[in-house]
Amino acid sequence: MGGDHAPKPEIEGSLRAVRHLPVEVILVGREEVLRAELSAHHPGWEKLPIRLHHASEVVTMDDGAAKSLRSKKDSSIRVACRLMHDGVAQGVVSAGNTGAVMATSKTVNGMVRGVDRPALASVFPTVKGKPAVMVDVGANVDVDARLLAQFALMGELYSRLIFHTENPRVGLLSIGEEEHKGNELTKAATPLLKALPINFIGNVEGRDLFTGHADVIVCDGFVGNVALKVSEGLVEVGKHLLQDALKASVSGKIGYLLARNAFAELKKRVDYSEYGGAPLLGVKGCTIICHGRSNANAIRNAIRVAAEFAQSDLNRRLEAGLAHGRAGRE
Amino acid sequence: MGGDHAPKPEIEGSLRAVRHLPVEVILVGREEVLRAELSAHHPGWEKLPIRLHHASEVVTMDDGAAKSLRSKKDSSIRVACRLMHDGVAQGVVSAGNTGAVMATSKTVNGMVRGVDRPALASVFPTVKGKPAVMVDVGANVDVDARLLAQFALMGELYSRLIFHTENPRVGLLSIGEEEHKGNELTKAATPLLKALPINFIGNVEGRDLFTGHADVIVCDGFVGNVALKVSEGLVEVGKHLLQDALKASVSGKIGYLLARNAFAELKKRVDYSEYGGAPLLGVKGCTIICHGRSNANAIRNAIRVAAEFAQSDLNRRLEAGLAHGRAGRE
Repeated sequence: MGGDHAPKPEIEGSLRAVRHLPVEVILVGREEVLRAELSAHHPGWEKLPIRLHHASEVVTMDDGAAKSLRSKKDSSIRVACRLMHDGVAQGVVSAGNTGAVMATSKTVNGMVRGVDRPALASVFPTVKGKPAVMVDVGANVDVDARLLAQFALMGELYSRLIFHTENPRVGLLSIGEEEHKGNELTKAATPLLKALPINFIGNVEGRDLFTGHADVIVCDGFVGNVALKVSEGLVEVGKHLLQDALKASVSGKIGYLLARNAFAELKKRVDYSEYGGAPLLGVKGCTIICHGRSNANAIRNAIRVAAEFAQSDLNRRLEAGLAHGRAGRE
Repeated sequence: MGGDHAPKPEIEGSLRAVRHLPVEVILVGREEVLRAELSAHHPGWEKLPIRLHHASEVVTMDDGAAKSLRSKKDSSIRVACRLMHDGVAQGVVSAGNTGAVMATSKTVNGMVRGVDRPALASVFPTVKGKPAVMVDVGANVDVDARLLAQFALMGELYSRLIFHTENPRVGLLSIGEEEHKGNELTKAATPLLKALPINFIGNVEGRDLFTGHADVIVCDGFVGNVALKVSEGLVEVGKHLLQDALKASVSGKIGYLLARNAFAELKKRVDYSEYGGAPLLGVKGCTIICHGRSNANAIRNAIRVAAEFAQSDLNRRLEAGLAHGRAGRE
């Protein structure tokens, strides 16, 4: 219920998911609203593997995370998390208030044993085809080296289990490839990352989000969030600038018309919605957080990712890895 | 002498500069190399306002900044900085080792009174036409709130004096527009920025590098460097992806051919080389640092920016501003 255009894209995406994927979807929110929207989109939806579960309250984008947790006990996100906690659902997908989803999922579901703080992962398209996973992109803005080591372990498992990368190359986001180039945090994290049983390739740079040089990129949530929004902003602006430039001349205008399909193809390759949301790693169960302005396709893909994540044994392996003292615990 | 392709683009760029701008260029480096390259490019160059000044050593990209400063006393960058210090030159432009240029310029020329640390500014194209100035993009990776306030003052003056922005809007790079969204550093910097006699507009996000929402964006050098390299990387990748997508179909191929001029126009708008390098703010004189792989056009534009910077009274006004306790000194 909390997305920018909820519940329309959520319902459209869910309809696509149940028709094309081996999943069942439980829509959580105001039952009468959901029922009306479902019937409008797909009369006869009752025959599909879609169920409704009522929740009377909605966390808005303006609600504080802590406050919504305390005061909105029957919010759609909280009820959805409880369904997962109780084993009724295996995963939760939300396009609502990111802070509230993170706080609620953590509180209701609890952390994977050995993980100190959850981390949000995002996925970037690369020129090599296989996407790069960046951890953290906003769950933790002030971190220490030990947390970065945990992010590395979580990201490595995600790349391995969800993208089926063999021996994922894990890089530490910094300002130069040489080990001595970085800030206090990256310098402190380097020995911890080296000590992990992962394929740590040292420092990577901002451009490596797209080069495919690394499968997993580790950073604090402040830097990761800035990087994510810089690239989102540039894609948006680049599209406008290119359209302007193409429309400025007659040949460009014709070129634009002829190239329109190619543009659609390109957009698909750089479009975050293709990758299906950001998993909240380190929390029990499986929580996928989508952009507030997600379209139906993004929701459908997030449901696909949630199903894959829920079926993987990521959390169990993470717990085992951490129990073996792998995350740089002194 | 220290650029990736030196001295070819440096010499071509200088030739363009002296032919089109009211400047005189002193080329500093191995005289015989420079003389041969100049003669090859432009027989009769002796009639142009170009002079040579010999320097026997070259700082390479692999040299450490501190070591090159100690051991290469006759490096081209050091000799160039000394010429500026002695009043023979009014500005220095280099496409060499960034760390070495920063350290050498700071040591040889000294700091503007009241500035604690120099900062590197970079310029981003925006959809609104006027570029955004980002400070710092790599000179200081571990900073405190007081330094961010100094960066804000320096960036504001740069936007005002070089881009002729009236009352530049200064934003603090963070992970959300609301004041409470940020890390310890941004939260500590906010009251200091509010206290400055500048048009502080609060937090801005990564996407605002391109939206034109702010004229000046303040951040620590680690985050700024990542943001810079993310956008460079994405432009590079986007170009390849788009070409691939366009060439995949016949209509796309024709579209690509027709749109080629528009692409060139677009590249010009997002091309850093149009903006002429990154000024090192807070150091006496005027030092412009170019990308190692700068082409002749980038060098020419850096010389133009250096001339404008040197003729402005940026350093004097910065010193005056700091003397009035404007940079958050307690």
